[in-house]
Amino acid sequence: MGTRDRIIDAAEQAISEYGVAGATTKRIARQAGCSEALLYKHFASKEELLLAVVLERMPALGPALDELRAGIGRGDLHAALVAFALAALRFYTRTQAIAGGMLADPALIAGFRAMLAENRTGPHVPVQALAGILRAEQRAGRIDVALDADAAASMLLGACFHRANLSRFVDLPGPGDKEWAGAIVATLLR
Amino acid sequence: MGTRDRIIDAAEQAISEYGVAGATTKRIARQAGCSEALLYKHFASKEELLLAVVLERMPALGPALDELRAGIGRGDLHAALVAFALAALRFYTRTQAIAGGMLADPALIAGFRAMLAENRTGPHVPVQALAGILRAEQRAGRIDVALDADAAASMLLGACFHRANLSRFVDLPGPGDKEWAGAIVATLLR
Repeated sequence: MGTRDRIIDAAEQAISEYGVAGATTKRIARQAGCSEALLYKHFASKEELLLAVVLERMPALGPALDELRAGIGRGDLHAALVAFALAALRFYTRTQAIAGGMLADPALIAGFRAMLAENRTGPHVPVQALAGILRAEQRAGRIDVALDADAAASMLLGACFHRANLSRFVDLPGPGDKEWAGAIVATLLR
Repeated sequence: MGTRDRIIDAAEQAISEYGVAGATTKRIARQAGCSEALLYKHFASKEELLLAVVLERMPALGPALDELRAGIGRGDLHAALVAFALAALRFYTRTQAIAGGMLADPALIAGFRAMLAENRTGPHVPVQALAGILRAEQRAGRIDVALDADAAASMLLGACFHRANLSRFVDLPGPGDKEWAGAIVATLLR
């Protein structure tokens, strides 16, 4: 395993143990068995390292979106969207502590925001991608054309993001994830 | 202003300057002009102090829910739900840095979770309250009884929570908040 991978692994480990604020580059470097100077040769900033942890170590939404895209116009649309919602729940559950730590640190979120703007990307991109897929399903005649695809995508991913967050604060009453996701999708497609 | 209020003010100020992790009780006590021992006489833990900041200094969802409740069965339902969504957006925008800081700190979230369980409350309560209001509107004949009120409440508040979060990471493309909320509500009520 190369130094870069060792640093990312150490960062992920440090974040889960000490939180984003406690996962200092000093601690991460020591855990990775390298100097802080070497860490900064691989990552220009803590923001960049955190982004690498999210993009390279967490189950991404990309494959789940690809699967939806591959099934446009065929197969069981309700089941495909439920599977997508469950993938989104897993992704948001896994990434929210890092995202929360960024939000909670004024300097970190400012740096991260600038980095995302420079790369013309961000956590809103999957919402746009999902809306595009819903529009393709409308063209394929499987979703009512009267449905506002952007609003539906905001609500589907928003509900998953919120539920992932809520479940860290409380034991959620009511149905389990799968039944919950089924009700969300059925409500959108009705 | 009493000591308790001075401490809460100092905590809010420290959080916005240094983030949740950087807002130590030592720093907060100094800013409030009291000793750390006195701070701990008013608040048993940092979790308790953070909860007081959220409950006593941030625009709560309670009044927005009360307003919806007062209008059950009369007035412009679409406009009332749009106003509610905008209030939820403001509330989540204001509270998310604190919530994020809790999530990002393993010890803090564990303590906070235990405290919420003991008090039988949590951030899921407004979702349940909104679902109850939607059901009352169904009984009043203003919302299709086929709508799943729990799913609709999850999606409306989830979309607002997610948007409040996304807007901290990126300048959101697309419509402004009011137009966005109008599309969300119209999609739910269709």
